[in-house]
Amino acid sequence: MSNILGKNITVTLFGESHGAYVGACLDGFPSGIKIDFDYLEKQMNKRKAIGKISTPRNEEDKVEFISGIKAGISEGSPITLLIKNNNVRKKDYEKLENIPRPSHADYVAHIKYGGYEDKSGGGHFSGRLTAPLVACGALAMQLLKEKGIKIGTHLKKVHGIEDRDFVDIEKDIDKVNEIDIAILEEDKKDKILKEIEIAKDNGDSVGGILETAIIGLEVGIGEPFFDTLEGLLAKAIFSIPSVKGIEFGGGFEMCDKYGSEVNDEFIIVDNKVKTKSNNSGGIQGGISNGMPIIIKTAIKPTPSISKIQNSVNLDKMEECELQIAGRHDPCIVHRARVVIDSIIALVLLDLLKEHRGNQL
Amino acid sequence: MSNILGKNITVTLFGESHGAYVGACLDGFPSGIKIDFDYLEKQMNKRKAIGKISTPRNEEDKVEFISGIKAGISEGSPITLLIKNNNVRKKDYEKLENIPRPSHADYVAHIKYGGYEDKSGGGHFSGRLTAPLVACGALAMQLLKEKGIKIGTHLKKVHGIEDRDFVDIEKDIDKVNEIDIAILEEDKKDKILKEIEIAKDNGDSVGGILETAIIGLEVGIGEPFFDTLEGLLAKAIFSIPSVKGIEFGGGFEMCDKYGSEVNDEFIIVDNKVKTKSNNSGGIQGGISNGMPIIIKTAIKPTPSISKIQNSVNLDKMEECELQIAGRHDPCIVHRARVVIDSIIALVLLDLLKEHRGNQL
Amino acid sequence: MSNILGKNITVTLFGESHGAYVGACLDGFPSGIKIDFDYLEKQMNKRKAIGKISTPRNEEDKVEFISGIKAGISEGSPITLLIKNNNVRKKDYEKLENIPRPSHADYVAHIKYGGYEDKSGGGHFSGRLTAPLVACGALAMQLLKEKGIKIGTHLKKVHGIEDRDFVDIEKDIDKVNEIDIAILEEDKKDKILKEIEIAKDNGDSVGGILETAIIGLEVGIGEPFFDTLEGLLAKAIFSIPSVKGIEFGGGFEMCDKYGSEVNDEFIIVDNKVKTKSNNSGGIQGGISNGMPIIIKTAIKPTPSISKIQNSVNLDKMEECELQIAGRHDPCIVHRARVVIDSIIALVLLDLLKEHRGNQL
Amino acid sequence: MSNILGKNITVTLFGESHGAYVGACLDGFPSGIKIDFDYLEKQMNKRKAIGKISTPRNEEDKVEFISGIKAGISEGSPITLLIKNNNVRKKDYEKLENIPRPSHADYVAHIKYGGYEDKSGGGHFSGRLTAPLVACGALAMQLLKEKGIKIGTHLKKVHGIEDRDFVDIEKDIDKVNEIDIAILEEDKKDKILKEIEIAKDNGDSVGGILETAIIGLEVGIGEPFFDTLEGLLAKAIFSIPSVKGIEFGGGFEMCDKYGSEVNDEFIIVDNKVKTKSNNSGGIQGGISNGMPIIIKTAIKPTPSISKIQNSVNLDKMEECELQIAGRHDPCIVHRARVVIDSIIALVLLDLLKEHRGNQL
Repeated sequence: MSNILGKNITVTLFGESHGAYVGACLDGFPSGIKIDFDYLEKQMNKRKAIGKISTPRNEEDKVEFISGIKAGISEGSPITLLIKNNNVRKKDYEKLENIPRPSHADYVAHIKYGGYEDKSGGGHFSGRLTAPLVACGALAMQLLKEKGIKIGTHLKKVHGIEDRDFVDIEKDIDKVNEIDIAILEEDKKDKILKEIEIAKDNGDSVGGILETAIIGLEVGIGEPFFDTLEGLLAKAIFSIPSVKGIEFGGGFEMCDKYGSEVNDEFIIVDNKVKTKSNNSGGIQGGISNGMPIIIKTAIKPTPSISKIQNSVNLDKMEECELQIAGRHDPCIVHRARVVIDSIIALVLLDLLKEHRGNQL
Repeated sequence: MSNILGKNITVTLFGESHGAYVGACLDGFPSGIKIDFDYLEKQMNKRKAIGKISTPRNEEDKVEFISGIKAGISEGSPITLLIKNNNVRKKDYEKLENIPRPSHADYVAHIKYGGYEDKSGGGHFSGRLTAPLVACGALAMQLLKEKGIKIGTHLKKVHGIEDRDFVDIEKDIDKVNEIDIAILEEDKKDKILKEIEIAKDNGDSVGGILETAIIGLEVGIGEPFFDTLEGLLAKAIFSIPSVKGIEFGGGFEMCDKYGSEVNDEFIIVDNKVKTKSNNSGGIQGGISNGMPIIIKTAIKPTPSISKIQNSVNLDKMEECELQIAGRHDPCIVHRARVVIDSIIALVLLDLLKEHRGNQL
Repeated sequence: MSNILGKNITVTLFGESHGAYVGACLDGFPSGIKIDFDYLEKQMNKRKAIGKISTPRNEEDKVEFISGIKAGISEGSPITLLIKNNNVRKKDYEKLENIPRPSHADYVAHIKYGGYEDKSGGGHFSGRLTAPLVACGALAMQLLKEKGIKIGTHLKKVHGIEDRDFVDIEKDIDKVNEIDIAILEEDKKDKILKEIEIAKDNGDSVGGILETAIIGLEVGIGEPFFDTLEGLLAKAIFSIPSVKGIEFGGGFEMCDKYGSEVNDEFIIVDNKVKTKSNNSGGIQGGISNGMPIIIKTAIKPTPSISKIQNSVNLDKMEECELQIAGRHDPCIVHRARVVIDSIIALVLLDLLKEHRGNQL
Repeated sequence: MSNILGKNITVTLFGESHGAYVGACLDGFPSGIKIDFDYLEKQMNKRKAIGKISTPRNEEDKVEFISGIKAGISEGSPITLLIKNNNVRKKDYEKLENIPRPSHADYVAHIKYGGYEDKSGGGHFSGRLTAPLVACGALAMQLLKEKGIKIGTHLKKVHGIEDRDFVDIEKDIDKVNEIDIAILEEDKKDKILKEIEIAKDNGDSVGGILETAIIGLEVGIGEPFFDTLEGLLAKAIFSIPSVKGIEFGGGFEMCDKYGSEVNDEFIIVDNKVKTKSNNSGGIQGGISNGMPIIIKTAIKPTPSISKIQNSVNLDKMEECELQIAGRHDPCIVHRARVVIDSIIALVLLDLLKEHRGNQL
């Protein structure tokens, strides 16, 4: 396993879905920062299960800091935070022990860790591990906001229903960051919620595409040849469970176009260099070019469904049927958006530190 | 800059497009391996400019080893290789010096490196840097092949023209690794070549999608939470110039499906656990599951086109027109496929070493 | 700050002396290991304050595992452990706030972290941080023992009083690992204890030299050119507070000898290659040679003394006198020996993993 | 092997003693720096074999830059440099092939790399690898000098003959950096040279202690808990062949003293905080405190001696005698001093970048 993200500012992630705690240690964070606990709570809330379209497992997700912060101010030493797993029901998982859930990590974990891995709720592979990530991300985001950097993500598409693109990007970022379900168009929100409920009622699940915009990032962030801004963001985002694709700017669609159609010509606006279009998604040569960074992330349908599925009993090495009990999300796309924002914030803060040092 | 890829087996990449050499240092490669120079040359040839659909810049790309290999056998010490830049024409670039080419790294490099960066042919940001990557990758691939791991990539799509999917994967991998232009269907090859030629004749360019398959990789490769197999492959692949998107298995298309449609149910075949479908693309929970790994990579149209474009003069800070001289590829998708294979081989070898140690 | 040790098996260390907890996260530890909690407790006890020669601050140092272990067996996921700080007396330190203690980290921390660092008891710079290190080290040591590797450290010298050298190394290692105060000669133990008590009675402190022996390590561990066995051990050991020197084998004394006097000639014993002497301290070219590894570590006198000292008031920028209150150790050499064993075990386990992979 | 040093500014080292080249790739070095080639040559000369007290192998050691520098100015891309091995005499080593030289890396390399390692002149383990280190170090040192940081090393002791300590540190640093044989006292120089000649005449060798002083480093450099300034310097310095011990400030001698004797009391000088004594060697808590950094490094006698020694034939697994042919240094202490300065400069530059970012 390798549970450390980052180079100069690092996150070490730990815990299991049905263990005592999930948590993280954020190292290299600057001292003297007054933590905005209201903002932290707001970010944590965005990740919470909501009403009918989420798991009935309801976690308080109160973040407890056990090192690195004194009187609400960062000390420079590593910041360790714990989130208690209150709502644990290990027995839901007992009968699953040797029957891996399709498209989950159960089977690979069983082979790699010899059956010793915690199986309850996916153990260390659970989406629950994203809770401490969001907490760390909130601290990173607070710093970025002070530097004029804004990050926002909306549900571009869920099971075929598409939200509009970002248009007035700063305004749209502000908007999605203030709402529970990050969909820009009200009528699309209704349709998407309905789509999720249908899946739920059928014991099924749906996935979607998250679109993220980042503004305010200076020109020059990213360290090619190998530590490109795209590469570092992609590596971080792929660690979020259920992510199966990522594209920047024009992405896959550019493959049907001519260079002359998608090249981003340079212009001067207010004595600053900009590009007329932004098919590069704000990144050229692996380095930020000052334009909004645009990322699309594909989230597969939640693999936990209550429909009967085929699987195998690994002890007996024979095929069998499986009906997953436990409490599951028919869709995690709306909860994942703040996870993506958070992990992006951590990557950017780390790169900013490499660029600017401790003065950030 | 950060020009080091990998953790236990590393590649340090160096050189500029129109400098004396491009090269790389491969460290951690096991000792006692008899290098297959014929295979190395074969791989280098796949990256070479071909006929009408590539740049007229023709480089011999002879790989010279200056450390780590004695009498054709690896010594255990770092393997350094150089590739001479013979066909250098710096004067093509002189007039461009302060007018960044749209969708190239010119502008960001100018800001980040203060104008001191080598501008000729994109300098260190040039696709030419992928030549030493292919050379290192050939060494890695040779080791992987001995362990029964095969990697192959074909042009799934170029400017809207689609090749068929991989079907009989092992056979298809073998096939694409034996042909110059890696397209599975003969008639599609003709159409694609024609498409590229049209772009060229118009002073324009096209992009495409590369599909990669990997077979023979054991279950258990990948180090979550953060060093997932998807994440490490994505980070490496995004360092290849012009890559703007990546997806694994069902990727973005799964966002329109139900979980019950795309979950990969487990079955037993020949007393081995397999999955009926492979929408996970061979990776679950960030770890290989023994099924073929399937990756799609989006390559944008080559940004260098000879059509007149708008840009800005960075010295005068005024808008201007730009016509790019120099010798350019109307399409790099067919040349990029071996680059993708190579960088994947390097990532896999590094992960195998983490998994198995020096015995690999 | 950089609180991560290791490459493939890592320790992330956190906490402050008078915060809620000190703790650590051990990542990459293999799954399926039944933790020997008795051994863990035994190791923790070796670090504890003992009788008259240590601080009156008495900590229970109970290790609480909050992730990575289930039913006493490692799961493969990161192992997080917490040690509660019970015996906290922040008020001892209040008056010190802006008067740095001589030869402590107070002053540099004040400058580097802008006064936001936790000052009580040295905060994150406290020797208390070595408690979780010993806990992680006990887990590493348990694995090493199973592979036939033994590590032991004795007090070679305290304030001028010298213990004898290791003679029958395996027996001596076994002996020191079974006793509270790791001194080989009984009469020297009495003298050393007396020396410490004198220092204590005078409000003063003493330091000493710890000698460590490692046996059972196979030939070939260490990764030159830069990750030599000496270098990695030294880097780790220098992170232990108060360490100011380290030498391997003949060390500094060899500087007065001829090569012909200190070269380790090869011989064959029981059909195995050995060296006649061991001035290399078991390491040649940065790689273990199969002979016992011999390390000497210099521990300076504990900087906390109750004698009045000169210092400066950083707020007023004026010189002043300082009398340190709080509870302090007149000597930490006897407590440090298990810290050195522990951090060595962590370094060796990490290198073994690089060498052997997950099969260790 | 692990041939990469550093985190944000890295050196990748390659080559073998009797291969085509030794060289290095320096990555992360800032752009826009006009390289001082005279200074580079001056530094390279300090490492050269001198007269009677060194090996007759005479290498021109001309540094050829093949990437990262254009018109004498750094471009921001990785700087690769090569040094040709002209004076190669592989045949000197042919008969040695399976008889390891005592206290050399021959035996461990043979086991670790299976006999495939380059054996001539120690291959990749040769002191010759320090030539490219000195070249990279010269570039780092040039930057440090511009920031007011000075580094100097003298031969504190050779085979029992002691030079005086640094007294007026800045003046002494300037002095040793201008002389060939870095000994502060003229009469000690004569004695030491004589001592080396005697060793040489006897087919023997001597070692010594190098003392290094660093001034001008700001308060706050070093990243505890694990990346302490002592630890990072020690790790780097132990990678230099023949180093067997290191101490900072009072080092091992403090073990005989009371805390009250060696604690560094704070005083105010010119409105700046200083310490009255400097037993901490300029480092407290792993962080620079603004006082001169004082390091002592133990260099063992050169293991290559021409006296007949006992060894074993690894093929036949039988004991035998060995007389080492080849051309060897009876002492490397005088040549090693610039190697230590160079590697220290690289470590400091890397830490400065972590502290200050690209503005350094």
